[in-house]
Amino acid sequence: LDRWSNLSIGEMLVLESIFWSAGASRHDIATTLRLSKSKANALIAALVAQGLLMEMGHGVPGTGRPAETLCISDQLGVLVAIDLGATSMAIAVLTPSLVVLSQHSEAVDVRDIRLGPGVVLARAKVLVSELLGQCDKSANDVLAIGIGVPGPVNFEVAQLVSPPLMPSWGDFSIRDFMADGFKAPVFVDNDVNIRAIGELWKLQRSVSNFLVIKVGTGIGCGIICDGKIYRGSTGSAGDVGHICVDINGPRCYCGNVGCVEAMAARPAVERLAAEAMERGESDVLRRYADERGYLDANAVGAASREGDVVANRIIQQSGSLVGQMLASVVNFFNPSHVFLTGSIVTIGPLFLAAVRQSVYQRSLALSTRGLHVQYSALGDTGGIVGAGVLAMQEFLKSRSVSR
Amino acid sequence: LDRWSNLSIGEMLVLESIFWSAGASRHDIATTLRLSKSKANALIAALVAQGLLMEMGHGVPGTGRPAETLCISDQLGVLVAIDLGATSMAIAVLTPSLVVLSQHSEAVDVRDIRLGPGVVLARAKVLVSELLGQCDKSANDVLAIGIGVPGPVNFEVAQLVSPPLMPSWGDFSIRDFMADGFKAPVFVDNDVNIRAIGELWKLQRSVSNFLVIKVGTGIGCGIICDGKIYRGSTGSAGDVGHICVDINGPRCYCGNVGCVEAMAARPAVERLAAEAMERGESDVLRRYADERGYLDANAVGAASREGDVVANRIIQQSGSLVGQMLASVVNFFNPSHVFLTGSIVTIGPLFLAAVRQSVYQRSLALSTRGLHVQYSALGDTGGIVGAGVLAMQEFLKSRSVSR
Repeated sequence: LDRWSNLSIGEMLVLESIFWSAGASRHDIATTLRLSKSKANALIAALVAQGLLMEMGHGVPGTGRPAETLCISDQLGVLVAIDLGATSMAIAVLTPSLVVLSQHSEAVDVRDIRLGPGVVLARAKVLVSELLGQCDKSANDVLAIGIGVPGPVNFEVAQLVSPPLMPSWGDFSIRDFMADGFKAPVFVDNDVNIRAIGELWKLQRSVSNFLVIKVGTGIGCGIICDGKIYRGSTGSAGDVGHICVDINGPRCYCGNVGCVEAMAARPAVERLAAEAMERGESDVLRRYADERGYLDANAVGAASREGDVVANRIIQQSGSLVGQMLASVVNFFNPSHVFLTGSIVTIGPLFLAAVRQSVYQRSLALSTRGLHVQYSALGDTGGIVGAGVLAMQEFLKSRSVSR
Repeated sequence: LDRWSNLSIGEMLVLESIFWSAGASRHDIATTLRLSKSKANALIAALVAQGLLMEMGHGVPGTGRPAETLCISDQLGVLVAIDLGATSMAIAVLTPSLVVLSQHSEAVDVRDIRLGPGVVLARAKVLVSELLGQCDKSANDVLAIGIGVPGPVNFEVAQLVSPPLMPSWGDFSIRDFMADGFKAPVFVDNDVNIRAIGELWKLQRSVSNFLVIKVGTGIGCGIICDGKIYRGSTGSAGDVGHICVDINGPRCYCGNVGCVEAMAARPAVERLAAEAMERGESDVLRRYADERGYLDANAVGAASREGDVVANRIIQQSGSLVGQMLASVVNFFNPSHVFLTGSIVTIGPLFLAAVRQSVYQRSLALSTRGLHVQYSALGDTGGIVGAGVLAMQEFLKSRSVSR
């Protein structure tokens, strides 16, 4: 790993540029960094000689890339990405170019106070060891660790700040706990922020101002502003779950009424579906509940695709409320894209259609002219990719600063 | 003015640093720009020799500044600042350090289609000539012209974009019209954006993430994000006037219902007061209307200070709705400060109290911890100062780029 520490600023910029474009030609690099062809070639030659860059040659199976494409070497270390949601944990080992080498996900309830950060993160470390073993790597091969967590984060100190879902995590140093046993730096951010960072990487930074809205157990928003993640003055930017969408709505656990999270997130969809089923309004929902033993958002989505009127009504209502919240945010922020992600996405296309209808109806014409509202192209892997991008980006930054 | 065109990057950074700190010592400049004492002194000496910087000596009347404070010279050109609101126009000639040399304001209704941009801006040019004459300056002394306009602006081309209040301005080149007769560059931005830029200057860039909310004929918001103005993907960021605060509210001219602008801006306050007076609910409001011949927001404010229950209820309701809109925005953006400005400010302290109560009640505790909600310290002059800052900042930038 020592090879990463003797780099010039120019070499670092080349590595960064290649990382963010997911591979690039010599010509691309010279153009992007506004370097002469000879200067760019010299920097690249030095990096290839050090083994930090590799060339994708003709006929590399499955890549389809032209001969001269340069990538960051997959021989000089790996990244660890951890995406901790409210009810699940996904972990992956990735190359510095974000190719997944091994991965695993499992259910965990971070809200369970019997667990707490020590138990959850100890389990994460066991999984990381197993995943490193699966691809013949060790702790010493890890360049950096990126972690997303479901709550507001103070990024500098890598700690959660008064997390409503998981109060016992508030004073816990995730960085210290995870760093133990590794030589790698640990970076922690909010779970929706890492998805926004992942989306930015997927888009190769071609879009400067966009939002990623995650609808799952809760509702959160990651903000990309002028090409960078925006975290706010105390790290809680994007906390849109408690925006009021109905001043006469039901009370939320936060103490206010009509919060979009309480009325439209996955638990609300599942509760409304269960209530409708209990009232005997939908045979289709009843059938799914009988078959599966429970009625989750997936079942509601399946019922909707069968044309069940009740399921459709519930999904439309949820999408419409999310869209109403989004309309306020779009008027304020004027993004060019909004990407939806989180477990609600599996519920199907009707949800997206309802969100769109509501946003376009409620936002000003000027804010929605050219606005794209769509599902994230990263899907399920958004958290893992984002945590990997965070790890690599901050790793490169930290090396830059050290010179 | 040629003296502004032969500057090195270092000299430009010194000028910028002094401009944004509203005067600085040699020591401050070296510290801020991370220059050695000798390097900083050399740059400053060159700028003093060229007459671009001046030293504020001992006993300069009324300044109270210590001897070594450096300011941008007031001998080498002036700035023109124009703040065009929906119903008024303020114009000033200022020194490059933003000392007002002459100013004038008058009523104008930009929504009046009989006027249009040609008539309104021709009047502005007449006023600029008069104001320059008042301080013995000519058009050739103008370094730059900064203009704020009440609608969404495409900053690069300096034009309004589909402005709802003033449709005939949409394709009009404000830059070309105003530049004619001057050698100075013209910069145009939204009227609330320039207030935000002015506030940033007033704060000497000590606050990085804040909002300026203007409540007057309409409601708009200027966004400072990571120390810079944020304009959004199509220039309409901060368009918060049409955020819905009551899904059962009255219809707004934009076509939607329950927009905060329709329910809480100055015209709504005045309409509610007139209706209450017509119903015979307030003798105090009746008295003001009789005395003045009309019932404006000032009169409602005066009635409130006398303790009139009806005036207080109307002001509280307006503040509460503005606060409700702000709560959504604060949850999303997590600013450290919100500054209120616009003609509603004259209505008195009760409005501010109602806004605060509503924001603190409706926003998440984490977003409001350490959040300051206050009236802008710039008051009435916010628009003029902001247009002046825009002019000087962009003037310096344009000179930087040219080298």
